[in-house]
Amino acid sequence: MKKILLIGATGTVGSAVAQQLGERHQVIRVGRRGGDHQVDITDAGSVDRLFAAVGRVDAIVSTTGQLHFGPLADTTPDQFAIGLHDKLLGQVRLALVGQHHLNDGGSITLTTGIVAQEPIAQGANATTVNAALEGFVQAAAIELQRGLRINAVSPSVLTESWAGYGPFFPGFEPVPAARVALAYQRAVDGAQNGRVYRVW
Amino acid sequence: MKKILLIGATGTVGSAVAQQLGERHQVIRVGRRGGDHQVDITDAGSVDRLFAAVGRVDAIVSTTGQLHFGPLADTTPDQFAIGLHDKLLGQVRLALVGQHHLNDGGSITLTTGIVAQEPIAQGANATTVNAALEGFVQAAAIELQRGLRINAVSPSVLTESWAGYGPFFPGFEPVPAARVALAYQRAVDGAQNGRVYRVW
Ligand SMILES: NC(=O)c1ccc[n+]([C@@H]2O[C@H](COP(=O)([O-])OP(=O)(O)OC[C@H]3O[C@@H](n4cnc5c(N)ncnc54)[C@H](OP(=O)(O)O)[C@@H]3O)[C@@H](O)[C@H]2O)c1
Ligand SMILES: NC(=O)c1ccc[n+]([C@@H]2O[C@H](COP(=O)([O-])OP(=O)(O)OC[C@H]3O[C@@H](n4cnc5c(N)ncnc54)[C@H](OP(=O)(O)O)[C@@H]3O)[C@@H](O)[C@H]2O)c1
Repeated sequence: MKKILLIGATGTVGSAVAQQLGERHQVIRVGRRGGDHQVDITDAGSVDRLFAAVGRVDAIVSTTGQLHFGPLADTTPDQFAIGLHDKLLGQVRLALVGQHHLNDGGSITLTTGIVAQEPIAQGANATTVNAALEGFVQAAAIELQRGLRINAVSPSVLTESWAGYGPFFPGFEPVPAARVALAYQRAVDGAQNGRVYRVW
Repeated sequence: MKKILLIGATGTVGSAVAQQLGERHQVIRVGRRGGDHQVDITDAGSVDRLFAAVGRVDAIVSTTGQLHFGPLADTTPDQFAIGLHDKLLGQVRLALVGQHHLNDGGSITLTTGIVAQEPIAQGANATTVNAALEGFVQAAAIELQRGLRINAVSPSVLTESWAGYGPFFPGFEPVPAARVALAYQRAVDGAQNGRVYRVW
């Protein structure tokens, strides 16, 4: 049984991951407002306090991260920075800080998304951030020490989110959250490093 | 003859690009301290003033951008943010603001680098930023209006930079700046959109 820190546990993706990983592991559920612990991944002090509170863990799983969606012609650099600070640097922060709070052989699993490779209208920030995270995972994988591993899961739009996001994804095939959650288990309980598990 | 705004024109890559593009076009050379005009791409006001000063152009070419290099185990989120603010958001800012200062059919060309696909030790920030920029180019390409195009050039280490960077790139094959400069000409004078021209 592993001790797993799951950030974003109260969300659409995260609640399915909590259920899947909870079948055989101890899952510490973290949200911004909900969950067993609270954290704001954009705030350095908040992330430090989270790790101090939970102690060493065997796995860090992130299923969180805000992005900016909107037409490219109207997008300002400040709007673009939202995704860079939240979904990108927030998750990178969990990895950079978290590497020092993992037991030997532990793992980090981050969340990207299908638009990394399949751009959509109004999604330039999302494609940029997701592509960045996939680059980070591949680069960090060759430098992590003590047998630590890092991977990412890239879901298509979730069936559970289709009502809200579907109109932005014409012709895309939604996937059930329960299928997406399996990829997080492959990352946590498998042995691979530097992988992006696509669920699409 | 096109009117080309070249940001980073005084650098190792940029001076070769200035020479290549200058053979048939009007090149406005921009540096942080040197060049015909000065700009700081991390500063919104500075970028606005640059575009106000030069007026409409046919092409925007960026050959600039700082990154953080250092061991992953020692990297702090603040250090990681250097590359996000400078090479990534700085070049994205040139594109987001610049799209409104380009003549119809104009183009934007940004600079990434080989570590986007080929990570090196101490290079997680560089891989992340370069991968992000390649995502941005592919996503922005499907939304630009008025026949505007956007592409990127991804050089390997330059022969001219090998003395400094070579030790970080064991077994990599350096490329002369003059060859790299040809890729910028393909981007500016060609017709493709959303391409990353690899010079390696
Ligand atoms: N849903 C999809 O179809 C889909 C598809 C592909 C990729 N993704 C990606 O999957 C991730 C999660 O998406 P989702 O749809 O599950 O989102 P969601 O339902 O909105 O859940 C977001 C989760 O993150 C937490 N959170 C929000 N801001 C935070 C912050 N600053 N610091 C720490 N935690 C924060 C929330 O906590 P509270 O509940 O306490 O606010 C919640 O647990 C995102 O990166 C998204 O881009 C989603
Ligand atoms: N050199 C290589 O081997 C190599 C290989 C692959 C990719 N690249 C990429 O190519 C780009 C240029 O590299 P380089 O080696 O040519 O760099 P460089 O020789 O240091 O030149 C940098 C250029 O950018 C300008 N600059 C610096 N900071 C700026 C800022 N905040 N705002 C606006 N302009 C700024 C400099 O102006 P001043 O001269 O006035 O300071 C100079 O013109 C970088 O993105 C680098 O990652 C380089």
